[in-house]
Amino acid sequence: MKRGRLSFLVVLWLLFPAWDLPAAGQETLASWNDGPTKQAIVSFVQRITQEGGKDYIPPPERIAVFDNDGTLWAEQPIYFQFAFALDRIKALSGKHPEWKTEEPFKSALSGDLKGLAASGAKGLAEIMALTHAGMTTDEFDITVKDWLKKARHPKTGRPYTEMVYHPMLELLSYLRENGFKTFIVSGGGVEFMRNFTEKVYGIPPERVVGSSGKLKFEMRGEKPVVVKLPEVDFIDDKEGKPVGIEKFIGRRPIMAFGNSDGDQQMLEWTAAGPGPRFALLVHHTDAEREWAYDRESPIGRLDKALDEAQAKGWTVVDMKKDWKTIFAK
Amino acid sequence: MKRGRLSFLVVLWLLFPAWDLPAAGQETLASWNDGPTKQAIVSFVQRITQEGGKDYIPPPERIAVFDNDGTLWAEQPIYFQFAFALDRIKALSGKHPEWKTEEPFKSALSGDLKGLAASGAKGLAEIMALTHAGMTTDEFDITVKDWLKKARHPKTGRPYTEMVYHPMLELLSYLRENGFKTFIVSGGGVEFMRNFTEKVYGIPPERVVGSSGKLKFEMRGEKPVVVKLPEVDFIDDKEGKPVGIEKFIGRRPIMAFGNSDGDQQMLEWTAAGPGPRFALLVHHTDAEREWAYDRESPIGRLDKALDEAQAKGWTVVDMKKDWKTIFAK
Repeated sequence: MKRGRLSFLVVLWLLFPAWDLPAAGQETLASWNDGPTKQAIVSFVQRITQEGGKDYIPPPERIAVFDNDGTLWAEQPIYFQFAFALDRIKALSGKHPEWKTEEPFKSALSGDLKGLAASGAKGLAEIMALTHAGMTTDEFDITVKDWLKKARHPKTGRPYTEMVYHPMLELLSYLRENGFKTFIVSGGGVEFMRNFTEKVYGIPPERVVGSSGKLKFEMRGEKPVVVKLPEVDFIDDKEGKPVGIEKFIGRRPIMAFGNSDGDQQMLEWTAAGPGPRFALLVHHTDAEREWAYDRESPIGRLDKALDEAQAKGWTVVDMKKDWKTIFAK
Repeated sequence: MKRGRLSFLVVLWLLFPAWDLPAAGQETLASWNDGPTKQAIVSFVQRITQEGGKDYIPPPERIAVFDNDGTLWAEQPIYFQFAFALDRIKALSGKHPEWKTEEPFKSALSGDLKGLAASGAKGLAEIMALTHAGMTTDEFDITVKDWLKKARHPKTGRPYTEMVYHPMLELLSYLRENGFKTFIVSGGGVEFMRNFTEKVYGIPPERVVGSSGKLKFEMRGEKPVVVKLPEVDFIDDKEGKPVGIEKFIGRRPIMAFGNSDGDQQMLEWTAAGPGPRFALLVHHTDAEREWAYDRESPIGRLDKALDEAQAKGWTVVDMKKDWKTIFAK
């Protein structure tokens, strides 16, 4: 370490004794460029963790909630869970020769997304029910873990669990080091996500809130099982997100992170709590290193929430400007 | 400390270097009498926490689930949450003069439990809806916290939050010291319980699973609120308990604690997992210091689950024999 940098750190330490300096050689949020976005995050965390400070928030109340698709990992060209469903249809098609000519399976098998869209909500629901229900929770978990090992993203050729945003992984760790409990609150299927969140994000199953189907407990002879039924139980999107937070977490978050109109109500709910609150949107602005989309995108549309962010002074990440790297290495 | 006791500890330490000895003067589960029940708990915990041992279970998987009514706090002469509902009816009756003559309110106001029972499931549902819905979650929390401060148990005259079992508080702490995550999985209302579990049991809101009504997010002008609706969303009892565990925790527990037939499926589900598992029932056998009831009790009936415990070798606490003290001091 050069002498100039050392003196700078000593001066900083004298000025801000409560500032939690990163370990030598380890910069806070190293893959975030210096600028107002990174500054907003770090200032907020310092403010609420300073013991004796007027904005101090004790650790049990340090709840941070993160959307998943488009916020922690990518969501283009289709939601990764939907890619899983299409791959499952292919895997199951050997036992269903009739699918070659019947919609929505015909389109699903040929990868014809337009044809699939034409089958409407009913067609999509049929595909989701067939691939996500009619089995025990244990059987479903095996299927998902197996898929995550073998499947590759169509554009990058990488496992889907490597399509996670490196700067967000750093942010999750940084918050946990500062006493936060980090939760996922996503429109994705809760049982799908729980098969990788602990390994990939350090977020254990009990801190994942998501959409879900109904479940049923039954005895199969001497063996108790929980079966996934083909009925929707809860949709954790838009107005559903604050409801999911109340149902599963039972305490209002102090920080919320999203990327689309589906996250707007979660951010409103978080920001409206008493005391210091922080709301952030990830704006996909990097067509070269990732994808660029917002107001017109059918996936991850960011339109009303972007206006609201400007009106309310929420922090907006400009991926192209704010992030040194995009994906995990 | 006497010399004999010291040598004994040194010998123990030499024999069992991995054994986590309690701090000087602090005995493990001090309010549990020595005997097979206490021994079963301690042996299990030592077995699964011994690093390198064949039964070792890593901390993220150390999930322990506890029923609440009759397992962590008392449930006689009526469930405490129902006492809250009756007190709320009294508090609201000033604005409803018609309740003096209309059932189920007439019986509720006069404390006539037989009359209330005669109003059937419909009458009880009406009382629960009136006292638990039609308000925001924030408003409900204020009402519950206020009641917990003022209300007193009809027999002991103590605040309800002092009617918790001291040996179970010790057990919760002991498990957490051994790397366990402790959860409540109760038929009680989740939002009711979350108002005291952190303070009383050291269990934060996000580790409480319970029954719930539907919720609705809405904007009241600029203010976002979550409203409690008078419709049942989830009943966390009997077959509902393994479902609640899958929905909210997403990982099968390795230890489960209950006291009634409502806990049987939770114990079956826990005990049937692979590797070492532990299931325990609290049997209310102490008519002097608490209450004695089991197979015939309308509240906390313990009948089929007691037979199952004997058949499967689950641990059964005999409150009279196994516990030195009953209630928290």
